[in-house]
Amino acid sequence: MHVLFACPHNDPADWLPGLTAELPDCKISVWDPSGPPSGADVALVWKPPAALIEHETGLKALFNLGAGVDALLQMDLPPHIQIVRLEDAGMGVQMAEYALYALLRVSRRFGQYERDQAEQRWAPQPGLRREQWPVGVLGLGEMGGRVAQSIAAFDYPVLGWSRSPRTVAGVQTYAGTEQLPAFLRRTRVLVNVLPLTPETTGILDRAILSQLMPGAHLINVGRGGHVNEADLLALLDEGKLDGATLDVFDTEPLPAGHPLWSHPRVHVTPHIAASTLRAEAIAQIAAKIRRLARGEPISGVVAPQRGY
Amino acid sequence: MHVLFACPHNDPADWLPGLTAELPDCKISVWDPSGPPSGADVALVWKPPAALIEHETGLKALFNLGAGVDALLQMDLPPHIQIVRLEDAGMGVQMAEYALYALLRVSRRFGQYERDQAEQRWAPQPGLRREQWPVGVLGLGEMGGRVAQSIAAFDYPVLGWSRSPRTVAGVQTYAGTEQLPAFLRRTRVLVNVLPLTPETTGILDRAILSQLMPGAHLINVGRGGHVNEADLLALLDEGKLDGATLDVFDTEPLPAGHPLWSHPRVHVTPHIAASTLRAEAIAQIAAKIRRLARGEPISGVVAPQRGY
Repeated sequence: MHVLFACPHNDPADWLPGLTAELPDCKISVWDPSGPPSGADVALVWKPPAALIEHETGLKALFNLGAGVDALLQMDLPPHIQIVRLEDAGMGVQMAEYALYALLRVSRRFGQYERDQAEQRWAPQPGLRREQWPVGVLGLGEMGGRVAQSIAAFDYPVLGWSRSPRTVAGVQTYAGTEQLPAFLRRTRVLVNVLPLTPETTGILDRAILSQLMPGAHLINVGRGGHVNEADLLALLDEGKLDGATLDVFDTEPLPAGHPLWSHPRVHVTPHIAASTLRAEAIAQIAAKIRRLARGEPISGVVAPQRGY
Repeated sequence: MHVLFACPHNDPADWLPGLTAELPDCKISVWDPSGPPSGADVALVWKPPAALIEHETGLKALFNLGAGVDALLQMDLPPHIQIVRLEDAGMGVQMAEYALYALLRVSRRFGQYERDQAEQRWAPQPGLRREQWPVGVLGLGEMGGRVAQSIAAFDYPVLGWSRSPRTVAGVQTYAGTEQLPAFLRRTRVLVNVLPLTPETTGILDRAILSQLMPGAHLINVGRGGHVNEADLLALLDEGKLDGATLDVFDTEPLPAGHPLWSHPRVHVTPHIAASTLRAEAIAQIAAKIRRLARGEPISGVVAPQRGY
């Protein structure tokens, strides 16, 4: 098996020693767009240029160095090329941390205490009543499931919505378009962990967000493409949403001067909710390549028509 | 059984309906320092004046509306009066939330991202490596145990120290004075959840705090009396401690102008880490009063010589 490293934004020196150690029987090379085709069977990719597919015609599988494969699916790959997404690899726990931090910042009023400290003001607020803070997790895959369970462990009421029915311990689940309104109207803090697909693009618009409970807060760790940013800003200004914590944006980096940067009730982070942990990613991908070499099935293969 | 409500800082109207409903066979009254002694058997107290004990000579037990009984023990009560502390009553999960929030703010660099947002600066930092953030929990009672387990659930290495040996799932535990240095030198984020006793007063001084790992951070949800605040400020300024998140202080409210308010690496909150949840406190205390009335033993009785 010949493995190609085709991640123009990553330094091969960080990845090749680990891959070589895990895959001693494979040939491993770095994609060279100006050289002859390498003849590689599979490639590790992260935001590859379209030229990769035209150039490396022997590729049968692309291993994406992330969980979200929306960018790869937009490339319109030939159907014989499998896309394999990274499964968790340390990202679920990071997503859960991010969501919990963003939740606590509003539910426990830590943002308020920070402003109080700046004014040297000692002003304890009444204790939290958890029943007033139901958290709804949109998307119950590996990431969403972990997020929902982590928040439930802190005794918040947790709801979850997914396209097809799922069961998550301690979480009240809803499924399909027809149950979405019931989920939304019982949710105060909405955590978006959906994959970006044609169906979910722009899903978080005025019609959806205005169905949340009063005093609602949006936490977006999915993709910027899920949110209609103009609707979000309008709802914040109309008081129909209380705040938002956003890690992903329509345009990244978020351009200087964009109103989300300076909105007093929007908390911006630079797409850091969950980063791929290199050692875990290498171990997971190498194990799958060994299975492929033995002709065995692997998990995490993307269904293009479904979009994840 | 006659139950006296003796919490000058709490409104009896918030508590009496619940107590009456839970204890239909008891007489329940509110302490009146200017009237004749009520003849009550037990009292619910929170920072009561010394006059209570002199006035209400029939009292056999005081139910403290909090977990920390240091203030009551300093009153030098007659030995026949039992002190009963509140056990958890929703406080453990709040402590765990607070500690996790404070941890994530430094380990996941959320504080930094907040400053970046103010400057509209998009600057993702390298991903977290959890092995670089061992968390040490000082005190492994009900609160400390919950804190330690909650942080371990997010895959941080967690250590715990207690006076006498304890076992907590997923936590490497240390006990007694002789094992304290080993615990400290493996700890980067120190979470103090100790009870305040003569033994632990001032324990967090230069000698102890300077044994922590480089880049250490102190999270104090115990009592202000645990910390030598002058030592803490000096260690921060010398770069021997990276930061501190403090919920409790030697003097509360923290006086205006106090250097902790304005230190750039100190995060101050106004003693809100864990507040007593009224409904849970009422249910717990009422259950214990019913047991006392039947002559049965109760848990949570303070050993004055131990201090908690």
